[in-house]
Amino acid sequence: MIRFECDYTTGAHPKILEALVDTNGEACPGYGVDSHCEHARAMLRALCQAPDAGVHFLVGGTQANTTVIAAALRPHQGVVCAETGHINVHETGAIEATGHKVLALPAAEGKITAQQIHDCCEAHHTDVAWEHMVQPGMVYLSHPTELGTVYTLAELEAIHEVCQRWRLPLFVDGARLAAGLAASDIALPDLARLCDVFYLGGTKAGLLFGEAAVIPDPNIDHDFRYLIKQHGGMLAKGRLLGAQFEAFLTDGLFLEIGKREVAQALRLRAAFEAKGWPLFVASPTNQQFPILPNGAVAVLRHKYSFEVWEKVDQAHTAVRFCTSWSTTDQDVDALIADIQRL
Amino acid sequence: MIRFECDYTTGAHPKILEALVDTNGEACPGYGVDSHCEHARAMLRALCQAPDAGVHFLVGGTQANTTVIAAALRPHQGVVCAETGHINVHETGAIEATGHKVLALPAAEGKITAQQIHDCCEAHHTDVAWEHMVQPGMVYLSHPTELGTVYTLAELEAIHEVCQRWRLPLFVDGARLAAGLAASDIALPDLARLCDVFYLGGTKAGLLFGEAAVIPDPNIDHDFRYLIKQHGGMLAKGRLLGAQFEAFLTDGLFLEIGKREVAQALRLRAAFEAKGWPLFVASPTNQQFPILPNGAVAVLRHKYSFEVWEKVDQAHTAVRFCTSWSTTDQDVDALIADIQRL
Amino acid sequence: MIRFECDYTTGAHPKILEALVDTNGEACPGYGVDSHCEHARAMLRALCQAPDAGVHFLVGGTQANTTVIAAALRPHQGVVCAETGHINVHETGAIEATGHKVLALPAAEGKITAQQIHDCCEAHHTDVAWEHMVQPGMVYLSHPTELGTVYTLAELEAIHEVCQRWRLPLFVDGARLAAGLAASDIALPDLARLCDVFYLGGTKAGLLFGEAAVIPDPNIDHDFRYLIKQHGGMLAKGRLLGAQFEAFLTDGLFLEIGKREVAQALRLRAAFEAKGWPLFVASPTNQQFPILPNGAVAVLRHKYSFEVWEKVDQAHTAVRFCTSWSTTDQDVDALIADIQRL
Amino acid sequence: MIRFECDYTTGAHPKILEALVDTNGEACPGYGVDSHCEHARAMLRALCQAPDAGVHFLVGGTQANTTVIAAALRPHQGVVCAETGHINVHETGAIEATGHKVLALPAAEGKITAQQIHDCCEAHHTDVAWEHMVQPGMVYLSHPTELGTVYTLAELEAIHEVCQRWRLPLFVDGARLAAGLAASDIALPDLARLCDVFYLGGTKAGLLFGEAAVIPDPNIDHDFRYLIKQHGGMLAKGRLLGAQFEAFLTDGLFLEIGKREVAQALRLRAAFEAKGWPLFVASPTNQQFPILPNGAVAVLRHKYSFEVWEKVDQAHTAVRFCTSWSTTDQDVDALIADIQRL
Repeated sequence: MIRFECDYTTGAHPKILEALVDTNGEACPGYGVDSHCEHARAMLRALCQAPDAGVHFLVGGTQANTTVIAAALRPHQGVVCAETGHINVHETGAIEATGHKVLALPAAEGKITAQQIHDCCEAHHTDVAWEHMVQPGMVYLSHPTELGTVYTLAELEAIHEVCQRWRLPLFVDGARLAAGLAASDIALPDLARLCDVFYLGGTKAGLLFGEAAVIPDPNIDHDFRYLIKQHGGMLAKGRLLGAQFEAFLTDGLFLEIGKREVAQALRLRAAFEAKGWPLFVASPTNQQFPILPNGAVAVLRHKYSFEVWEKVDQAHTAVRFCTSWSTTDQDVDALIADIQRL
Repeated sequence: MIRFECDYTTGAHPKILEALVDTNGEACPGYGVDSHCEHARAMLRALCQAPDAGVHFLVGGTQANTTVIAAALRPHQGVVCAETGHINVHETGAIEATGHKVLALPAAEGKITAQQIHDCCEAHHTDVAWEHMVQPGMVYLSHPTELGTVYTLAELEAIHEVCQRWRLPLFVDGARLAAGLAASDIALPDLARLCDVFYLGGTKAGLLFGEAAVIPDPNIDHDFRYLIKQHGGMLAKGRLLGAQFEAFLTDGLFLEIGKREVAQALRLRAAFEAKGWPLFVASPTNQQFPILPNGAVAVLRHKYSFEVWEKVDQAHTAVRFCTSWSTTDQDVDALIADIQRL
Repeated sequence: MIRFECDYTTGAHPKILEALVDTNGEACPGYGVDSHCEHARAMLRALCQAPDAGVHFLVGGTQANTTVIAAALRPHQGVVCAETGHINVHETGAIEATGHKVLALPAAEGKITAQQIHDCCEAHHTDVAWEHMVQPGMVYLSHPTELGTVYTLAELEAIHEVCQRWRLPLFVDGARLAAGLAASDIALPDLARLCDVFYLGGTKAGLLFGEAAVIPDPNIDHDFRYLIKQHGGMLAKGRLLGAQFEAFLTDGLFLEIGKREVAQALRLRAAFEAKGWPLFVASPTNQQFPILPNGAVAVLRHKYSFEVWEKVDQAHTAVRFCTSWSTTDQDVDALIADIQRL
Repeated sequence: MIRFECDYTTGAHPKILEALVDTNGEACPGYGVDSHCEHARAMLRALCQAPDAGVHFLVGGTQANTTVIAAALRPHQGVVCAETGHINVHETGAIEATGHKVLALPAAEGKITAQQIHDCCEAHHTDVAWEHMVQPGMVYLSHPTELGTVYTLAELEAIHEVCQRWRLPLFVDGARLAAGLAASDIALPDLARLCDVFYLGGTKAGLLFGEAAVIPDPNIDHDFRYLIKQHGGMLAKGRLLGAQFEAFLTDGLFLEIGKREVAQALRLRAAFEAKGWPLFVASPTNQQFPILPNGAVAVLRHKYSFEVWEKVDQAHTAVRFCTSWSTTDQDVDALIADIQRL
């Protein structure tokens, strides 16, 4: 079975694993105050050109999203996001479990617009019964989105501006940000400048696990470690996060992994298009969503794992193929050859 | 600096690390349904003589405690525990954050008794205003406790009986269970027979991270994976937990690590006693709590890390020394020599 | 100003007020265990032909909804409802504040169908990542709905059947049930037979305040008083609820008030239709939603209060007129005359 | 049965009831924005000499406590209170249900001291593992306390000072404040000056129901109505609260009721002392706690209702007698005569 079902099927990139093995014998303080974490924090602040930003390492994405949102909102506030947003559909109500409603907006290819956010806020604040409704309290974007699409810098700037206007913190979920950096004109310093908080995901880019939250907004950063602990995200051997991120951020490894994931995915996309299979959504990143004849799905399943996304009609199904740091040229070649053969 | 401040200062036991390295290249499904997790689950069920128990792997202890308690309680119920219990003092209100009160009982050396639990339930159910108070809904023990003490099998059986009588699920936090197995007459099958849910901790016994929850009670196990996900504990690369626990459970490694931790600690305890330093609590496990003259604290701090526990009087301080899988004979010898020299 | 903005602008129906005045001097136990509450409970059980149902009195609708839903769901479950449902839009996230997601379905005229509920459950349970999503755990209907429409008995029976099939408790919010009983073929015994829990609203039918929850399902009723207290709904002078409901349930007063509210509203509806104003939704109950030329809105506002519902186009606005127990023939006559005059 | 079991056994004081009857026919906007509420707000601001304070009316005490605390705390913070505090023991975990731990301090006669609060904060902020523990985020006092005792102005000023130093909002639960005003040197303007939020209780002082929250702190007051709604405290016919408080605040009725309650209670206290029955706690307000021989309890129970508080020894029981606005001279005379006769 060649696995394209997600971008976390294998272990760690060799350089990440090496860092863990090399530091295994060191004795460090727990909970992320060790020297590896401190160093990784400094590296990330420098890469973001945000010397004053808080940086915190968390184990996974649900934790990161829950902790950030809980840190930012008052109880009567909700988080505005795309209806396809991860926090709205794939976290088993983790946000609601902290007491907050997810205010889902219709999304075109996984994205929402500055105008939508503005309209949502305006509608809330002009309603006569406003206090009977959840107040928009934060904006959540994923970049790349759950459908592989990315925001442009111009779009992000427009959203930032609307958020400023309505005094809403802007939060970017970067679980797949390594791929996003390879496929958009948004760089880390842009995120640090335009967001109140965002994270750079490691799990889907070659770490064993780990997400690095960058928090330029001091109000959200204040006492953030309490919130990490409360939400179960305070890793005892925090040094594991530090050591992995040190390696990840050294010599642009995170960029390289992102580029490679994306390049492999675009080879697949070209093969789907050459075959005449339409795309459910035109993704420029490491998730690809071709619409396949059901027969092709049945055949490919024998050899490849991938995810069924949505039945498009009686005869066709949208599926998802993901590439990862460990996807080899041979894996991709094999799939392309099998597609052509169909 | 020789570190005795906690039992998670270093990385993984070599056999655990080897398992991670060896399996790093394998491509597996995510979220704990891979073959390593399945195998580790089967091993643990066999060791517990509990073929029908649910087994779930979680990253850390706060997560494990929060998820189990949220799974077991209705909203108006609280969890009964020792006032020194981890969930009462050292989890930043994680239990309360899921809506539940911790019903803390006075604890002698970190332990509570069957009689106390009975009295607490009886007091609740005979009060005229019972529905104005939180209902006891579960009992939480730590074994070993936060003070290193352990329950005896007879004590656990008595607590089990009271729990049955009041229909309260019994939950044992085994974050340091490997040490507990080495220092008490309670074995895994006893826990599986007497508890509704317990976990075997890996983080404090030589894993990079990981706790294995065993859930004999089908009501608590029902839909438990939803709760893991909601509480941020569903590790994407779940295979990391499976691979580590496979190694941990093979050929009694977990027992061996527990024994070794305890043996090193008891050497320290003997040295404290030989020196004439009283014990804050007489712990038979890998945490030791001698009461030191403040001068000794000041001297030892230059070379050793350990935790200040409590000021006992103007001139004396209770401190905690922890041993771990990686504590060497030399570490212990050095400390003993320095104690004698004082 | 003649008020049609809602059905709770005035105090209590004279017979309700009289009951309060008459019993004012009695000394009773607190918290709803007095003889007035006991009597009202017995009356309601008899009217529902549900001798074993739990009956509890609560102060208001948000409290009733929150308490019932919290009593019924486990943490990973959500409540299925119409996107226009009160719990989804007009309770400031009260449901989410107890940790539960509202699973909103598209609604035609405020109603959802058995088929939609079935599809929602089926979609959930066939998804490969089901435990990553909130599990449907309960169905919430309002009858009448927030748009004044009602379910038929056949519709309710079909929904009941689907709920049984998927083992979902069925909850009917009857904040305006008095009007619903006057305008549908569903009677109290039908609700007691088909629902796991429902309530008969008093606030919008002539009480000062008060909602009577009927709970045929013993699992939801179990320990329900604890939940009432926890959610702030345990009125100290509970006798006020008992005394009001005694009067409300005596000699069919609740039915009479419902009929009268509806009759006044239907006179208004006839006037809107006669004037050629389309209806935003064809409501058979005490809320009416005509679409008015903006000019008519501006004129009528000088003399009447009513609620702007939605801008339909540049020139037209849907508005809501509500009648209540205290709406007089003169109020309605005046408005009809002014409409004709426009 | 003559009822001394609590101070909410009867309905409303005649002047309160009269206000409700007189205004019953008025048509008002809902949710507390009517002219009666506005007027009552203005009256209370004037009485408090706090022209800028927010004033909000809530139905009951649990609601008031929950809403205020949820409005003030961030998720990792807890509320400091006496172990006997209402929020700690008699609200079925309502505070925890909003996610917050109650940080209970040992209490002498129901009261805590400025020093205790200071020590609690200092202990938290000097602990090395501070972020592993709940952060003190607010101080809650009841005045009078659950044991009838009161703070002095000097005590309240000292607590205020400590709260300022640690930047903790100070919250006074005034469910029985009318009695407290009669029995201490603290007046409404003192509370408005020294607290960030407090409330004046109506339920236990002759209203049908209702508590008036005064919020000098604009941070807590901000968006407070959203929180009221979310916690189920937004009464549809809010005018009922306004009308009752208008009457309550007119011509010092609240003071008069408080004085009368206290005077009746002190007559009872004198009788207990004359009889040689010790006091469980020396309360200067409308709750009295004599320690009775068990035989006296058994005899008095035939004719009087009162609450068993605590078994003091095999032969004696502490009980609570409460007086209220409706306690008559005859009620008190009868009880005194029966005590003398024993």
